[in-house]
Amino acid sequence: MKHQILVFVAILLCYPGFSQEKQQEIKEDFKPSSKNQPGQEYPQVNSQGYARFRIVAPAADSVRVSLGLGGQGGTKLTKNAEGVWTGTTAGPMDEGFHYYHVNVDGGTFNDPGAKNYYGSVRWESGIEIPAHDQEFYALKDVPHGRVQQILFPSPSTGTSRRAFVYTPPAYHENPDERYPVLYLQHGWGEDETAWTNQGHANLIMDNLLAEGKTDPFLIVMTYGMTNEIKWGGLKDFDIKHFQTVLVDELIPYIDENFRTIADEEHRAMAGLSMGGMETRMITLNKPDVFSHYALLSGGTYSPEDLKDQKDVKLVFISSGSKERPEAVRSSVEELKNAGFNAVSYVSEGTAHEFQTWRRSLRELAPLLFK
Amino acid sequence: MKHQILVFVAILLCYPGFSQEKQQEIKEDFKPSSKNQPGQEYPQVNSQGYARFRIVAPAADSVRVSLGLGGQGGTKLTKNAEGVWTGTTAGPMDEGFHYYHVNVDGGTFNDPGAKNYYGSVRWESGIEIPAHDQEFYALKDVPHGRVQQILFPSPSTGTSRRAFVYTPPAYHENPDERYPVLYLQHGWGEDETAWTNQGHANLIMDNLLAEGKTDPFLIVMTYGMTNEIKWGGLKDFDIKHFQTVLVDELIPYIDENFRTIADEEHRAMAGLSMGGMETRMITLNKPDVFSHYALLSGGTYSPEDLKDQKDVKLVFISSGSKERPEAVRSSVEELKNAGFNAVSYVSEGTAHEFQTWRRSLRELAPLLFK
Repeated sequence: MKHQILVFVAILLCYPGFSQEKQQEIKEDFKPSSKNQPGQEYPQVNSQGYARFRIVAPAADSVRVSLGLGGQGGTKLTKNAEGVWTGTTAGPMDEGFHYYHVNVDGGTFNDPGAKNYYGSVRWESGIEIPAHDQEFYALKDVPHGRVQQILFPSPSTGTSRRAFVYTPPAYHENPDERYPVLYLQHGWGEDETAWTNQGHANLIMDNLLAEGKTDPFLIVMTYGMTNEIKWGGLKDFDIKHFQTVLVDELIPYIDENFRTIADEEHRAMAGLSMGGMETRMITLNKPDVFSHYALLSGGTYSPEDLKDQKDVKLVFISSGSKERPEAVRSSVEELKNAGFNAVSYVSEGTAHEFQTWRRSLRELAPLLFK
Repeated sequence: MKHQILVFVAILLCYPGFSQEKQQEIKEDFKPSSKNQPGQEYPQVNSQGYARFRIVAPAADSVRVSLGLGGQGGTKLTKNAEGVWTGTTAGPMDEGFHYYHVNVDGGTFNDPGAKNYYGSVRWESGIEIPAHDQEFYALKDVPHGRVQQILFPSPSTGTSRRAFVYTPPAYHENPDERYPVLYLQHGWGEDETAWTNQGHANLIMDNLLAEGKTDPFLIVMTYGMTNEIKWGGLKDFDIKHFQTVLVDELIPYIDENFRTIADEEHRAMAGLSMGGMETRMITLNKPDVFSHYALLSGGTYSPEDLKDQKDVKLVFISSGSKERPEAVRSSVEELKNAGFNAVSYVSEGTAHEFQTWRRSLRELAPLLFK
């Protein structure tokens, strides 16, 4: 178990999100990234997936962007006569969202042109490489659900804790109806803002619902208390603390304050990366709380793990094709052979990053609460 | 009118938020700012209001923080043998929240220790100088309202626009009740996130409600479309665009999708700085939409302005004592003499910054919808 956690942290820290395609001629059709701050022209991306950066720091001696070549130090920018640093990734990036930061004379800063997203236990810069399937998480002229920030009492941690609750359009149109709930966890280094800010979970749901591809349900996102986990610090990790917050504090609060169907059959848990590990641990520790389990780039279940949970309604396991898809597929095959309703999904051409998880949510949602 | 807008932009750009007290011995009781990123030790503040910064940039030649001396270039940091830059403001800062950024070798970046807040048309670093009255916006063990992110259709701008809606605890406890609404605008350079992130408007309301000091109402916050206004660009400013979004698109959406009392008597508009200017313009252009008007460091009304609006229920005008409080007081005196229910508030020891506006909201809320 601890080894598995280490692997997730390692993947998250090291994966460059860098396409394996051969060097090619760079098309000069660069446009501002959709994740830029208002009015900012840089960073830019082109139709091939190259990213181009521009940083003003006239007196600096060295400016690098962490994105582009991973272990080899990212993209080194060069300075022109006006003190403006520019540079382009050495190859195309994978489709979707990437975190990055800028190193200026040995210090770590964010790109002043980009918006910030909480990842790697800091607010990082974010960039979006337009994906061929980006329509499924685009802001469209469809009915929109809400993302409700709540502060729920947590006696075990001695404070009010924040969560976000996605409520679908139907929730507000039908004030007497009750709905199932998906508890959805972020990964290591992230927090409860990740699934909507980076993942666009609300827009994915809005679009699926508008197309009639899923039934409506609530999504609850809170902080998984994972960010204290550092290299070598895993011996101190204990799921008990988050499990108490989630199962004994948040779920009762949600059931009391939202119109939920408050039973195991209508409650799902899913998580990405470390959030998948948490999902796995909590669903195994508390078999009567959730009936639908989903691990997104977050480990697998064996039939042995679930031998006392024959009434689980769905096991969904996914990853990017650049992770270890064979483990996802073989695990699901074994679960099916053991009689479980198990589904695998592999996101083509993506790695341990949010494009994998956006697509995983798109695939998961229509399977829930059937 | 245009002159007044220029003044607001000028104040916002130039005011150092710097206390006028004499140089004093610096107490070594510095603690991390409450606005720091998780786990970050710097920036720090002490009990006198001094701020201390620490930036790692080993190969940099110059690191400055914009906070501390305003026009004189802020606080210059000095480098130790390990390449760590530190520095303390030359004097105590005003109580409350301040925006700032870091200049590294001529480039503008954020402090990697601080969280980011949208101001000055960029995501800025934020720091909090503990105020003697900070309890009124603290996170306490009281019933908490929600902050609901909505996406409302805006035909006039061809997109779905974001707004946040504060719903008080009572709104969720009494599903058959309807509530009045305050439309609350941010200032120049800010956006719809300002009033909750920087202003803690939701916590201010939660605390006032828990103490029985105000009646419950909704607060709606959206982007005021002010950020295109730059020095010299005022000739292009036209309130019409935002007025259409607010009055013709957002208000009908709120009244259709929330349990509001959808009439003039139960609708207020308030704004800070440029948002006050917008409040002033829109309440004068559209006298039948709102009945309670509030300008927070955002100009004044004359009796002549309101000569055809004798049924306005409340005019609230406020500023910091370090702005132009005499204009606030004399304007309210004139309005009272003309028969209006006008109230002034001056925030002691604060300037054109969020502590003034947090306090103004605390003073305004109990006066609304009486």
